[in-house]
Amino acid sequence: MDESSRPLDTLNASRNKTVLVELKNGLSYVGKLRAFDIHINVVLENAEEYHNGEVKRKLGTVFIRGDTITILSPA
Amino acid sequence: MDESSRPLDTLNASRNKTVLVELKNGLSYVGKLRAFDIHINVVLENAEEYHNGEVKRKLGTVFIRGDTITILSPA
Amino acid sequence: MDESSRPLDTLNASRNKTVLVELKNGLSYVGKLRAFDIHINVVLENAEEYHNGEVKRKLGTVFIRGDTITILSPA
Amino acid sequence: MDESSRPLDTLNASRNKTVLVELKNGLSYVGKLRAFDIHINVVLENAEEYHNGEVKRKLGTVFIRGDTITILSPA
Amino acid sequence: MDESSRPLDTLNASRNKTVLVELKNGLSYVGKLRAFDIHINVVLENAEEYHNGEVKRKLGTVFIRGDTITILSPA
Amino acid sequence: MDESSRPLDTLNASRNKTVLVELKNGLSYVGKLRAFDIHINVVLENAEEYHNGEVKRKLGTVFIRGDTITILSPA
Amino acid sequence: MDESSRPLDTLNASRNKTVLVELKNGLSYVGKLRAFDIHINVVLENAEEYHNGEVKRKLGTVFIRGDTITILSPA
Repeated sequence: MDESSRPLDTLNASRNKTVLVELKNGLSYVGKLRAFDIHINVVLENAEEYHNGEVKRKLGTVFIRGDTITILSPA
Repeated sequence: MDESSRPLDTLNASRNKTVLVELKNGLSYVGKLRAFDIHINVVLENAEEYHNGEVKRKLGTVFIRGDTITILSPA
Repeated sequence: MDESSRPLDTLNASRNKTVLVELKNGLSYVGKLRAFDIHINVVLENAEEYHNGEVKRKLGTVFIRGDTITILSPA
Repeated sequence: MDESSRPLDTLNASRNKTVLVELKNGLSYVGKLRAFDIHINVVLENAEEYHNGEVKRKLGTVFIRGDTITILSPA
Repeated sequence: MDESSRPLDTLNASRNKTVLVELKNGLSYVGKLRAFDIHINVVLENAEEYHNGEVKRKLGTVFIRGDTITILSPA
Repeated sequence: MDESSRPLDTLNASRNKTVLVELKNGLSYVGKLRAFDIHINVVLENAEEYHNGEVKRKLGTVFIRGDTITILSPA
Repeated sequence: MDESSRPLDTLNASRNKTVLVELKNGLSYVGKLRAFDIHINVVLENAEEYHNGEVKRKLGTVFIRGDTITILSPA
């Protein structure tokens, strides 16, 4: 297996970079990926919350529970 | 890994500080983070419940079951 | 860690005291906390069921399955 | 801990007694508690199914899968 | 404990007998209980699918995934 | 126990035969059962997707995640 | 068992090939399968998001949490 053949390697490569995280409830968060674990719990810094493509709130640091996440993508 | 590279380190750094906790059912709680565990069960003190941005109730101490939480953010 | 730094310590401190338990389905129960376990299964005594702020039923002893609970708060 | 300090002790004390079991889908069952396990799977005998407070069916023996249960209460 | 004090003993006693299985999606199946496991995955033979009390389809052998089941009752 | 007394034995007996797989979201798939595992993840070949009894798409090989399945039946 | 008798063998055979991934929320993603794990967490590259058959966004690399997936099919 090469260096990125596991999904969590992709998360690791995004550490300290800006990512988009989308939730099952339709909300999205964009921020710097500070931390994650095997449950896909993630922590973003300088995070902004989006709803229907518009910024809804600035949240600073936000912990997102893994089981509520659908996708995560480098911005 | 530095000192905050795991999501639960972020929760630990928020202990005894005011945090916002949002649930899958649309309710939010703001209070002092007293305790948490690996399931993200949390206990807030001096907690207030919010719905649609307005205070709905003052609850004092509240135990929130982890699997109902979407995000947690330092206030 | 001090004596109440884990969420279940909070539940333990509420044992034999009156608590409010709210469920994902919108129903609430108020009663004396008789027992709980790590799944947050709880047993209340002298429990009353509330819906939209009004007492709906008196249930006496009630076992509540943990995965249906959102919050628990000392009354 | 006294003899009933765990939730499953409450279920055990209800064995062979009439109990009410309510499900996430809004249906209720009243019958004699024949058996249960740690998943809160339960078996009732002489069970009747209720919907909106009215008897809908007589089912005799019924196995109820634990993860569909919200509450269980001695009748 | 007597011979039927565990819920799966009840399922075992129904093996090769006709049972009713109801699902979270509102569909029901009636057939001969051929097999089950600890997840309550079940296999019925000569199964008929019911919706709102009417036969919808004859399915022959059907494997039903346990986590979709609400109740199971000997017919 | 005879040879087919476990649910996964039924799946094994259907290997390389045409089966119907129905999902919680109302979609159905008909194809040759190529593979399955204990989570009831399945792989069908020459699969067609059905919605409301009509073919919606031809998919060829399809991996179906087990926790989204309600029933599986030999065609 | 032959070489493809387990569902994850099918995923492995699709590595570095274009696949379609559909989610419980109705969104679909088409991209090159870069990585997957036993939870069916997957990573796609050059991914495009579809809704109702139309491209909604180009996402580049996307991590998809396994428990939100219904099906995965080689394109």
